[in-house]
Parts: sequence; structure tokens; C-alpha cells
Amino acid sequence: MTSLYEQAGVSIDAGQKAVNLMKEAVTATHGPNVLAGIGAFGGLFSLEGLLDGLARPTLVASTDGVGTKVKLAAALGRYRGIGHDIVNHCLNDIACAGEGVRPLFFLDYIASSQLAPEMVAEVVSGIAVACRAAGCALLGGETAEMPGVYRPAEFDLVGTVVGLLDAGRVFPRPTLATGDVLLGLPSAGAHTNGYSLIRKIFETTPLDAEFAGIGPLGDALLTPHRGYLPELARLREAGIAVQGLAHITGGGLVENLPRALPAGLTARLEPGSWPLPPLFRLIQQQGGVPDSEMRRVFNLGVGMVVIIKPEQAAAALETLAEGWRIGEVVEGDVLLWSG
Amino acid sequence: MTSLYEQAGVSIDAGQKAVNLMKEAVTATHGPNVLAGIGAFGGLFSLEGLLDGLARPTLVASTDGVGTKVKLAAALGRYRGIGHDIVNHCLNDIACAGEGVRPLFFLDYIASSQLAPEMVAEVVSGIAVACRAAGCALLGGETAEMPGVYRPAEFDLVGTVVGLLDAGRVFPRPTLATGDVLLGLPSAGAHTNGYSLIRKIFETTPLDAEFAGIGPLGDALLTPHRGYLPELARLREAGIAVQGLAHITGGGLVENLPRALPAGLTARLEPGSWPLPPLFRLIQQQGGVPDSEMRRVFNLGVGMVVIIKPEQAAAALETLAEGWRIGEVVEGDVLLWSG
Repeated sequence: MTSLYEQAGVSIDAGQKAVNLMKEAVTATHGPNVLAGIGAFGGLFSLEGLLDGLARPTLVASTDGVGTKVKLAAALGRYRGIGHDIVNHCLNDIACAGEGVRPLFFLDYIASSQLAPEMVAEVVSGIAVACRAAGCALLGGETAEMPGVYRPAEFDLVGTVVGLLDAGRVFPRPTLATGDVLLGLPSAGAHTNGYSLIRKIFETTPLDAEFAGIGPLGDALLTPHRGYLPELARLREAGIAVQGLAHITGGGLVENLPRALPAGLTARLEPGSWPLPPLFRLIQQQGGVPDSEMRRVFNLGVGMVVIIKPEQAAAALETLAEGWRIGEVVEGDVLLWSG
Repeated sequence: MTSLYEQAGVSIDAGQKAVNLMKEAVTATHGPNVLAGIGAFGGLFSLEGLLDGLARPTLVASTDGVGTKVKLAAALGRYRGIGHDIVNHCLNDIACAGEGVRPLFFLDYIASSQLAPEMVAEVVSGIAVACRAAGCALLGGETAEMPGVYRPAEFDLVGTVVGLLDAGRVFPRPTLATGDVLLGLPSAGAHTNGYSLIRKIFETTPLDAEFAGIGPLGDALLTPHRGYLPELARLREAGIAVQGLAHITGGGLVENLPRALPAGLTARLEPGSWPLPPLFRLIQQQGGVPDSEMRRVFNLGVGMVVIIKPEQAAAALETLAEGWRIGEVVEGDVLLWSG
């Protein structure tokens, strides 16, 4: 029997099947702080044992989407990586709030014109794996079928992460000053930004087309957003005092670096100091995109900028194993590109 | 100059304008616990002063959307109410987690094929007003333009709320037992559930058509989701010991009441004990929807069910001023409809 509600385009059973499939993956992210089985209307996360040593316990939260990268995932029917994308994007964002941010939990929202349970399960599995790697509980989520809002076969994915830190250790640190060094950590690709432009540039290019140094275009474009929590933990363990962090997302280095700096200070970047990945060269050539626009749309190979004292630059680069010295903090209001 | 990125359908400036417009409304929701101006990559919310008296401080979180009610808002160009919808929906959900849940902060996500700054400002203003009424900070949000994912002029709205409670006071209370009374609190309309079916039933009916006891159809259908935090606070102040709460959302009383009850207990409802609002009568008649489906899609006039001890039922109804005794807790697994 098909209910009237199903005829109207909403399948309660399909939603239910997806919920069951994702349950196992979600449970695997749960540590002792998740009070599972109770409070079914909302996820419960205990703060017990987490507040010790925090003089001024503070929550940091961020909500984000992955932009039109979802269109590529839908076109190729590959959904797992997009789960990593949303988690890593959100985790990188809250990491920029201060020293030693501890991710607590993540919640997701997946909506489409019609829910395919297997698709939802793939997305959520990706989310769960990325959460687990970061020690972050996947505490809850919502799926929605919205025929008439989403185009057929398209979907959107939204994530929210909540972390914990000490308000006395927020970025930028009060010691951040001119002469501090900007270290760039390599991105894994375009991450989750600039995909509307990318799709326009490559709209007549088959996604299985191969390019030198890049491989199949679809693979390169779907490479997940890289998470930098492990690198930041290594710096902390090595005693490197990070002064500030900038997650390079929409708006590129141009818009995101200033967000990490106090008023009156800006960055001077040396664009020749790190290699422009072949993917961005291809995007620029194929699309005839001017340098100025490349710089305010794409990460250009730098996914996270770590600001540290000059005397710790060498030790930091050694600890990180990869990354470049891409510029320094200077006085002023306008981001400078030298060289 | 139109940048290539704008030609591809993404207007950075339109997004920026929306961000500026919403800023003022957002700031008005901020109390001393919002550490504004720092941590620009994520919103910062201090827990200082909020943990006192909580033996086992626990966070409760929920992410949700408002379903295809957004299509009606888009069709009528009325966006403010939909902001109230998402906030109240989320707040009601976390209220069901336990006694005295304190909402801390809310984050929103608004995406469309193209962002109209005025539309975003209207939605966010609605969100901000509803947040402020609940003493909840609007801590952050994200807007996204996703041409090719959303149908033209359509949008989606996602909200996440985080609250604080004591893990020793979660619902259902250990004292919840057979014979406890179910009090129904009146809904304001269909709230945010069943809109795909509603839109199908009324697809050829003009939204300005007037119906007896209902008024203009569009107005009735866009009436915002009611929030029950004030009612719950009144019960607490009157010394009424709530045993459990069920927010009646998608799945109706049939699916949501069992979520509020421990295993082995179910509810016996007396459907004649509260008035079916004219809107639901119209929906049922116009759509020829059987009772069984009405019950598992719509709230049928009951937006929240409060479970209390029989000896406190009269005092509770007096305190609430509105509401009905709609049934009681009985042994069993299957929801019963008597009368």
C-alpha cells in the first residue's frame, strides 16, 4: 500500500531505512561522553571530565555546507568523500578559535528531492569515519526529502560542530606581532570552495578526462577537504606556540588571512614561495581566470596558515614535515603580495 | 566589473550585503556569554556562571530543517515566520531532553539558487527575534548560493541549537509510570510537518482563498511553529514535576509519543478529548486523507505532550491556562486510540 504521503513525494519508509543504515556508523563514533539511548529528541553529550584544567571553559561552534561540490558528488555517484569534506571543513574552522580546541560533537543535515537510503548511508559513513579520526562524536542528524525545492538527484549537506576551549587561549594570541612567520600547510585540492566557477570552466569537459600531473578530473575535484587537527596536535606536542590560525576557505588567502590577524596588522605573502598545484594551473589556464580572482576564490594549494614566532619557524617546519614559509606579519590593513 | 565567479552564478557581494544586514539582529541576541569579536572562524560561547548547580553538566543538541514549508514562504515572499519556525522547532526538541534545559545558542544555514540579501535578512530577523525571546544567542550561521542544486527561487533553512542540562534530570523521569496523565498543548497550525502532502492537496487552490474558521489559506499554512518554553517554565515555577515531554513533529502523535516513554509503556489517547482544528478538518476533507494517515503525518492540534502525575493534572491545566487532558500512560508497546 502506498500512502498518500508517499504519493506526494515523501517516503517515510525510505527515510527510516536510511536512519537504520547510518546508525551503526554513528554509534562507532560514540565515546563515554555520549549519553546514548536517552533524550531521543536531541543528542546528549556529557561534559564530565572535560572541564578540568580549563580556567574559562568556552564552547566554539560552526555551521557550514560544502557548496556545489555536492553537484560533482551527485554527478559521479560518489558520496563518501563529501562526508569527509563537511567534517574537516567544520573542524578546521573551530580549530582557528584558539589553542587546543577539543572537538566534542558533530551534527549533520542531508536533504534532497528524494532520499536514496544508500546515498545517505555513504555520506554518513564518510562523516562518521572523519569524526572518529578526530575524536569527535557524531551526535545527531537529520534527513529531509524536499521535492520541489531541490533539483532532481541533487542534494545539500550541512554540518555543525561544537568544540571546547579555554577562553584564555583564544587566537590571535596577544603575543602575535609583526615579523611573525606565516607557514602554509598544503591543501589536498580545491577543498570545498570555488566549485561553481570550477564547474562552469569544465562544463564541457568529461569528468573522466585525464590531465598531466592531475589524473582523472573527477577524482581531482572530489579529493576530500583535508583536516589539520593532527598537524596542530604535533605542533602543540613539540612545544611550538601557535600565535594564530587561518583556515583558507571561500574568499581564499585574501579574505581569510585577515580574519586571523588583529586590527592594524596584515600579511605580506610571497606567492612564489610555495608551489601552485597543477589543478589550479589547469583551472586558471582553462578558464582564463586572472590572478586577482584566483587569489580570492581558491586556496591555491594552502589549506591552513599557521602563524608562529620566527625563532620557531625551522622547528615547526621540521615537525610538520610538509609546508612552506609563505610570508610574514607586517603593519597595515591591506594584504600584500610581493614577488 | 562582474567577476567570473559572479557570471558562474555566485555573487560574493550579494552574500556580503546579506551578512551586513543580519549582523545587527544577531548582535541583539548576544548576552555576556557570547565572546564576540574573537574567534571569527567559529562563534564562542562561554560556559562561565552556567555550570553552577549542575551535578552532571551535559549538552543537548539538535539539527533540523523546516521541510517544504519553505516552498510556501518562497511562493508568498514571506520569510520572517519561517525563522520563528526553525528556532521553535529546534528549541522544542531539546526541551524534551530533560527538566530545565537551558538553551545556549543557535546556528543557522540558509541556501538558495541565488541569495536575495533582503530575503536572508528577513529570515535571520525572524530567527533572531525567536532566539531572543528564548534567551538563546544566535551565535553564527552560513549562507550559500548553490545554483544548479536548488530550483530557482527556492531555498532551504537548517538550524542547530545547543542547550545545557543536568544529566541527572533527563526525561523520561524514573518516576514516570502507568496512570500518568498526558496533557496536550495546542499547536498553532501544522507547524513544520506534513507540508508536502498539504501542498499536493491544495496545489490548485489559490493561497489567498478564504475558508470558514481558518481565514486566508496562505496565512493559516504559514503560521509559525509554536515554542513551548514559556509554558514549561511556568510549570516548573508552579512546582509541577514533569515526567516526560513529546514534541509532536513529523510522524505525529503516533511516532513521537513513544519516543518520550520508556520501554514497556505506551499511551492511550482519547481523540475526542481535544478539538481538531478547522485547518486539519479542511486538509482531511479536501484530500480525502484517512484517519490513520492524518495521525501519523500531522500534529492534529497538539504540538507538545506533557506527561505528569495524575494528582498534579488539575494544577497543571490551571497553570497552563490552555491545553487538554488527552490520555494516559498504560502498559504495552502499541499506541492506543480509544473512543
